[in-house]
Amino acid sequence: MWCEETFADRVRYGLRASRVVYEGRSAYQTIAIYETLQYGRVLALDGVFQTGERGEHFYHEMIAHPALCAAPSPERVLVIGGGDGGTAREVLRHPEVRSCVLVEIDGLVMEACREHLPLGRAAWRDPRLEVVLGDGVAYVREAPSSSFDVVIVDGSDPVGPSEGLFGEGFYRHCSRVLAGRGVFVTQSESPILDLELFLDIQRRLRAVFPRVTPLVGPAPLYGAEQWSWTLCTHGGDPLELDVSRAARVEPLLRYYHRDLHRASAVLSAELRRLLG
Amino acid sequence: MWCEETFADRVRYGLRASRVVYEGRSAYQTIAIYETLQYGRVLALDGVFQTGERGEHFYHEMIAHPALCAAPSPERVLVIGGGDGGTAREVLRHPEVRSCVLVEIDGLVMEACREHLPLGRAAWRDPRLEVVLGDGVAYVREAPSSSFDVVIVDGSDPVGPSEGLFGEGFYRHCSRVLAGRGVFVTQSESPILDLELFLDIQRRLRAVFPRVTPLVGPAPLYGAEQWSWTLCTHGGDPLELDVSRAARVEPLLRYYHRDLHRASAVLSAELRRLLG
Repeated sequence: MWCEETFADRVRYGLRASRVVYEGRSAYQTIAIYETLQYGRVLALDGVFQTGERGEHFYHEMIAHPALCAAPSPERVLVIGGGDGGTAREVLRHPEVRSCVLVEIDGLVMEACREHLPLGRAAWRDPRLEVVLGDGVAYVREAPSSSFDVVIVDGSDPVGPSEGLFGEGFYRHCSRVLAGRGVFVTQSESPILDLELFLDIQRRLRAVFPRVTPLVGPAPLYGAEQWSWTLCTHGGDPLELDVSRAARVEPLLRYYHRDLHRASAVLSAELRRLLG
Repeated sequence: MWCEETFADRVRYGLRASRVVYEGRSAYQTIAIYETLQYGRVLALDGVFQTGERGEHFYHEMIAHPALCAAPSPERVLVIGGGDGGTAREVLRHPEVRSCVLVEIDGLVMEACREHLPLGRAAWRDPRLEVVLGDGVAYVREAPSSSFDVVIVDGSDPVGPSEGLFGEGFYRHCSRVLAGRGVFVTQSESPILDLELFLDIQRRLRAVFPRVTPLVGPAPLYGAEQWSWTLCTHGGDPLELDVSRAARVEPLLRYYHRDLHRASAVLSAELRRLLG
């Protein structure tokens, strides 16, 4: 069988699968896990591929390590979304992290992933992880100011349950809960497959954060050719990283390393012009 | 209608098209040009997407400008393949280029592209371009030693008419026809979609050239997440570029620029380990 997703009725991306491992429907979305030949078990939400056993490390390493290596003291980490556990797994590789709060709106996604998609095994067992079942937008609205050193937004596309994770109001609260020298990062979609959406996210982030630095890189499973993750701070340079922290985590990783931190921030000539 | 290609019966990539602009069959392959919604007119050879009106600049800028900016004196350029004209167009942006010989095996590809896929319009009219209809493998076997400052191999995948463009014997002749301080570059497939093929190409190039430096970047239309182009020299560092030459061409480009030259050579942690 072929599992396919379609972008804007113009591009189609399909993975051959040997079977459906899990199918469910929550209050928020349909959830499916397929056994694919190319990427092993793959999670799809409302028919859109999210992550898979193989090929997921690009995305999860890039959403976690640049922020964690750029934050001067990444002790208190907040992850909004990320119910598959992959981002928490990467965050918890850093011994500086004392607590990682993961706020996922869809309990069924977490349940299905814990059972059938073993990305976050080590994370789910880590005593530093606190899982909150709830709405990330409400969570940051109610969280105390400056209560996190790193805030990570690991949501799906801005339709359905993740729509609120791309709003300026949400970003303002993220900025407020972020400590003065902290680092905020969000997945910021594909500058190639959907340039307008990428630029729109950049504009909203720039309206809130003094410093906004997009990183780009490959992310298999999205059929998008290039993905982006955007680092934001209250003024610090997110390309200044703690080299010894990066060096310590590098041997555990498959994509990210010190030199990629800066290389990922080198955008195309066209994006440079568009972003000024 | 959907035009689709399939990789190893595991991944499928499709583009919606409003019509078939051209269909033909040469002695070497089937040739089709579709009017797609996402990328405009798109060329497919034996059912595999090659290039398109939109999104082609990533590939063509990366196969041309890093080599041309790294070669000390890029006066005599050889392009093997590249019948769509996109690579020749990029090469001829450099005023240092006195001649560009394009050797394409399939006259019907060139004819169809000249008529229906306007990538190389400026190139086809440039008096510095010499088009040779013939086999690139035979051409380099017979060409005099040290007769080119830049050799560019712009072939399709290593099946069908392009198979010979990935052989060690062919690379040896490319090395021989390359001037002492010249730069050779070949498209070297996707390290993500087909890691084994990428590594195999690296091994063969390393058997021939003292210095082998792969660059990576996005290439829409291939559904591969990341593409690679590998620079080879007889010893010079292909990351040392002529900054003023790059600066002059940059305003004309959409992807490549000085900083990307080096940033593109920063590979994933995994590729670094595999390549040693």
